Amino acid sequence: MTKQLMKAFAMLKIGEVGWIEKEIPALGPRDALVAPLAVSPCTSDVHTVWEGAIGERHNMVLGHEAVGEVVAVGSKVKDFKPGDKVVVPAITPDWNTLEVQNGYHQHSGGMLAGWKYSNIKDGVFSEYFHVNDADMNLVLLQEGISLKAAAMIPDMMTTGIHGAELADIKIGDTVAVLGIGPVGLMAVAGARLRGAGRIIVVGNRPVTIEAAKFYGATDVVDYKQGPIVEQILELTGGKGVNCTIIAGGKSTILADAVKITAPGGNIGNVNYFGDGEYLPIPRVEWGVGMGHKTIRGGLTPGGRARMEKMIALVQTKRVDPEKMVTHEFKGFENVEKALLLMKDKPKDLIKPVVYVK
Amino acid sequence: MTKQLMKAFAMLKIGEVGWIEKEIPALGPRDALVAPLAVSPCTSDVHTVWEGAIGERHNMVLGHEAVGEVVAVGSKVKDFKPGDKVVVPAITPDWNTLEVQNGYHQHSGGMLAGWKYSNIKDGVFSEYFHVNDADMNLVLLQEGISLKAAAMIPDMMTTGIHGAELADIKIGDTVAVLGIGPVGLMAVAGARLRGAGRIIVVGNRPVTIEAAKFYGATDVVDYKQGPIVEQILELTGGKGVNCTIIAGGKSTILADAVKITAPGGNIGNVNYFGDGEYLPIPRVEWGVGMGHKTIRGGLTPGGRARMEKMIALVQTKRVDPEKMVTHEFKGFENVEKALLLMKDKPKDLIKPVVYVK
Amino acid sequence: MTKQLMKAFAMLKIGEVGWIEKEIPALGPRDALVAPLAVSPCTSDVHTVWEGAIGERHNMVLGHEAVGEVVAVGSKVKDFKPGDKVVVPAITPDWNTLEVQNGYHQHSGGMLAGWKYSNIKDGVFSEYFHVNDADMNLVLLQEGISLKAAAMIPDMMTTGIHGAELADIKIGDTVAVLGIGPVGLMAVAGARLRGAGRIIVVGNRPVTIEAAKFYGATDVVDYKQGPIVEQILELTGGKGVNCTIIAGGKSTILADAVKITAPGGNIGNVNYFGDGEYLPIPRVEWGVGMGHKTIRGGLTPGGRARMEKMIALVQTKRVDPEKMVTHEFKGFENVEKALLLMKDKPKDLIKPVVYVK
Amino acid sequence: MTKQLMKAFAMLKIGEVGWIEKEIPALGPRDALVAPLAVSPCTSDVHTVWEGAIGERHNMVLGHEAVGEVVAVGSKVKDFKPGDKVVVPAITPDWNTLEVQNGYHQHSGGMLAGWKYSNIKDGVFSEYFHVNDADMNLVLLQEGISLKAAAMIPDMMTTGIHGAELADIKIGDTVAVLGIGPVGLMAVAGARLRGAGRIIVVGNRPVTIEAAKFYGATDVVDYKQGPIVEQILELTGGKGVNCTIIAGGKSTILADAVKITAPGGNIGNVNYFGDGEYLPIPRVEWGVGMGHKTIRGGLTPGGRARMEKMIALVQTKRVDPEKMVTHEFKGFENVEKALLLMKDKPKDLIKPVVYVK
Repeated sequence: MTKQLMKAFAMLKIGEVGWIEKEIPALGPRDALVAPLAVSPCTSDVHTVWEGAIGERHNMVLGHEAVGEVVAVGSKVKDFKPGDKVVVPAITPDWNTLEVQNGYHQHSGGMLAGWKYSNIKDGVFSEYFHVNDADMNLVLLQEGISLKAAAMIPDMMTTGIHGAELADIKIGDTVAVLGIGPVGLMAVAGARLRGAGRIIVVGNRPVTIEAAKFYGATDVVDYKQGPIVEQILELTGGKGVNCTIIAGGKSTILADAVKITAPGGNIGNVNYFGDGEYLPIPRVEWGVGMGHKTIRGGLTPGGRARMEKMIALVQTKRVDPEKMVTHEFKGFENVEKALLLMKDKPKDLIKPVVYVK
Repeated sequence: MTKQLMKAFAMLKIGEVGWIEKEIPALGPRDALVAPLAVSPCTSDVHTVWEGAIGERHNMVLGHEAVGEVVAVGSKVKDFKPGDKVVVPAITPDWNTLEVQNGYHQHSGGMLAGWKYSNIKDGVFSEYFHVNDADMNLVLLQEGISLKAAAMIPDMMTTGIHGAELADIKIGDTVAVLGIGPVGLMAVAGARLRGAGRIIVVGNRPVTIEAAKFYGATDVVDYKQGPIVEQILELTGGKGVNCTIIAGGKSTILADAVKITAPGGNIGNVNYFGDGEYLPIPRVEWGVGMGHKTIRGGLTPGGRARMEKMIALVQTKRVDPEKMVTHEFKGFENVEKALLLMKDKPKDLIKPVVYVK
Repeated sequence: MTKQLMKAFAMLKIGEVGWIEKEIPALGPRDALVAPLAVSPCTSDVHTVWEGAIGERHNMVLGHEAVGEVVAVGSKVKDFKPGDKVVVPAITPDWNTLEVQNGYHQHSGGMLAGWKYSNIKDGVFSEYFHVNDADMNLVLLQEGISLKAAAMIPDMMTTGIHGAELADIKIGDTVAVLGIGPVGLMAVAGARLRGAGRIIVVGNRPVTIEAAKFYGATDVVDYKQGPIVEQILELTGGKGVNCTIIAGGKSTILADAVKITAPGGNIGNVNYFGDGEYLPIPRVEWGVGMGHKTIRGGLTPGGRARMEKMIALVQTKRVDPEKMVTHEFKGFENVEKALLLMKDKPKDLIKPVVYVK
Repeated sequence: MTKQLMKAFAMLKIGEVGWIEKEIPALGPRDALVAPLAVSPCTSDVHTVWEGAIGERHNMVLGHEAVGEVVAVGSKVKDFKPGDKVVVPAITPDWNTLEVQNGYHQHSGGMLAGWKYSNIKDGVFSEYFHVNDADMNLVLLQEGISLKAAAMIPDMMTTGIHGAELADIKIGDTVAVLGIGPVGLMAVAGARLRGAGRIIVVGNRPVTIEAAKFYGATDVVDYKQGPIVEQILELTGGKGVNCTIIAGGKSTILADAVKITAPGGNIGNVNYFGDGEYLPIPRVEWGVGMGHKTIRGGLTPGGRARMEKMIALVQTKRVDPEKMVTHEFKGFENVEKALLLMKDKPKDLIKPVVYVK
């Protein structure tokens, strides 16, 4: 039998991308094949290709943010059928693992191994892509949610909100969000969803600052106006914030986070750290080890139940992710252009979406 | 020395209220004397007077919801001085107790004994009232917060939000709020503040339903249209809600709450139960004891730090409590009228406020 | 093809048990067939047969506590092979469900539906029995753990310890354990494992009292000497305990639990409640709804990861479950005798074990 | 009025200790004056004097671990009177602060400022010492607890156990304890108290290894036999431990802790870090920011309620702290000798106690 080929946009090797042909993936009994309707490139794709963040890869299809249409399903798939429109989480774990039983599906099969697309297997920038354990990892795209909004759910929304979860915000807390790219913006929305009072964001570009305010920021610190630690301590009368979410930055941002967080506070990190062998905790400001400034960092939950919760937030208008989409492209061929946008970060960019048709 | 007298509105005995004269309270070194600027009567006052909810009392000044102006402070009070405008929490615990060290200031000195006004001591419907441990129990009324809004903070807002805290809502959860009087409305706001997706409320009066939608309700169940358990199960495809907040009702409402909550869900109660010797948990729907439907009920936190968090929510416009105030009175003498409103519950009432001057 | 038959001990109908022949279960690709090495009857079997606790059943094989030997495995089972000695949890959920993703595998497929043996499917009192999702639900019996000890792991140990988990015990807390049958004894061990200081048990039979002391009880209350509420309040200077675990009793035991638990305390229930339409929460002692006495009740976690944790506790000698086994039988035919022991509860009984060979 | 003088053992300046005379402290209305019965020097005293850990101090009385007898009390002290034997926590916060209301009394008045003795005020190596807020900070020494055991409660026991609390151990978890000085030994006891299965300790001296086994260690790693990360990973089949408690070591021990902890695990630190500007989190092993390896570090809780919990553990024989006391001295003058022991750390030392009379 001849294998059928499909077109895909891939990392050819570190530093190089391009269009390739690959075989359409084969399906196991619980799997599904999905054709993308809308995709979005992620900063992670940029890290992967141009920084070698996950090591060398050859002809690996890129992309892990997609909304699509089911094309085929395995014999044991019960809840989905060809023609269904679905949101596909960036994190699609193997659910039959002890890690799941122990509470961390994100790390099933090894640390971070719940993240499969454009990492452990081919990504979603392809005519078709493979979904493992479809009943557990897909979710129907509900009526009334646009493709534009839906494309923000698989990664941006769930990741940013996870930052707020990790920061364990309490009602009325003052929260700092470091970094207001799309994940940071969703961290702002997440902080508000957990009941934050003041939300202090650090940013500089007008487009992101305006969006941050839209999502709930009350104070803006411009890192070009001086050290952010000083500015945030001044804003809080020297006391620091209750919680900090890190959603961007080099490794030294962790030191800043510790410095601005009050004793008894929490730091939640959803940032990918790509530089240095060590991340620095400032010894004195961490209370020489005893300041009760908790540091949590984690990959977003994925899978179907998580996506259902995200969709509920969009349906009930708790979060409007469309505000983040600054650039829209029609035609699958524009994936490359969209990815380069994420690489070059023009002033007016938050996040692009590519509609396949 | 002749003691000075002041005018106060009191419970004379069960079933009877009236204006009396009392001595102006003496101050200990950590105490403060406050003159009310705005007060609000509470359903609890109604329970106290007409249902004998806390037992017999003679000439006890009523009221526990007040915003006021500091008139005098004890020698050890550091953070407040005469002339300061303050919000006074309904719950003003003794902070120097083991109950505080064990995490429950509400119950310092005995279960519920953190609630002092119009319970253990005279209330706030008086020309002047006493504040124990002023540095720990008062908070400055911040600029830009109206008296109208501020009067909702001492009890309604913090109590309703505590319902959401007790229900331990997770991001995107479906939440039911049973009862949408003022506490229930703030429970709706609280559910939204904790990240609820759908919020199903049970009510009937247009004024409260409109307010519930304003605060975040997405679905309304009218208890006059049939049993609420059936209606809510139908709305949730038979699955029930993730969390339920009880903010009103007779003791049987607890049974309803268990029936509509899915296994693994939480029930948070901030309702005062006044009837019956026992509250009923339905055995089968509670999983014959093993359904993981957690039942929590608790008095709101009080004190200064809590009030600071509430004020932050108003300042940052996360919650606008003014929407609840349907009736406003000028002149202290209208306290009686306002209280009777709470007793009679006319159709258009949510909550009255009385401005003293 | 002729189906092979096996011998099994079953509930013939409510009130009647007996030996029957059944077909050996067929295996799906992820399943296993296990032959029991040691089994133990449970009070639940008694409830099932003589109280009709789960409704009518015909020729349903009884038993859900077993240690066995793997006889056959499906094609997709990776971690087990014929000849492996395994502990089989009483709770064997379907792991591919949204309930698992939402944190409650016990209720996958419906409330309590993680409990399958002698409930939803045939039990383990059979020459062979079926294990769904073997890689997720079985665990190897480790070297150095006796069959006698191992037979207590599938239900008694994990259930009793779950009582302590539900009660959310903090270091140094005073804990009451109501009921010291085998589950109650493991609740005592669980309370100790979570760091309880004083552990007050309620019992009467010397054999269980001695065992309770062995597992960590410091104070014993004899319910024949007067109302237990009064006795426990006296023992605690009127303050009540921090946490209460319910591991036995009629529905009124819940009222007792609320009465003896201090504000801010937790009640954890692992008792099966079989009587009455409602379980009573005493209104006043529950703080008229606001006493912060949390009530949790839940089916024990099951599956492989949970069993691994239990086995670790036995291997490291944190818990010695052998002490509970008061009656040992050799020969599968003695299952009936052992079950009747559980029904009749002679004075010297805690728990019997039947070694199949 | 002439002030009365007392003898005290003090830090004269960095690097120098000696006996001095000081005025007997004056008492406020809520304070108490206590004469020590037994004291113990702490490694912190060594850090303070010879490493300048808290900066320069002149004639500051050393010591923060004491059991004593109340000599005088202020007019508002209700629960203690002269002659009472008391345990004095190392952490004696100001309880009337917002930090307490926000849940962290340890940091009332500023990060770590709940630690007052031999830090913010004079310590306990003195004929008499001052106790602020006596009703909130003292606890009666219960009958049946030896001075030897009691002297371990104020700091060693509560600090070590706090390590286990910070590590948030779950039933049956595998736990590593890094450092088995007296705090580490109590961390081992704490891990057992929270239900750990395997407890892997890192140490080398026979006296501490034997004590570690006594308190619950199941595996011992000798850091002189090779890198501890490799050894612990090997012991756990490459998976790492669920939780790690850091109770000793230079700043690089934090990197080791991250490396040996599995994703989803927790690191609890109660170690004082004295070296370096930054503590290193190893980037890759921390999952490039997303491995869900939570890092918590905190000063032990203090005050009366905490001490009551510790005393309950000793009374109920959950922990026997006497095992840690390897050196006993009679006569207050031996405080110096005892302190030098802590500085020199002879092979057979765990912890010395000095009985004053």
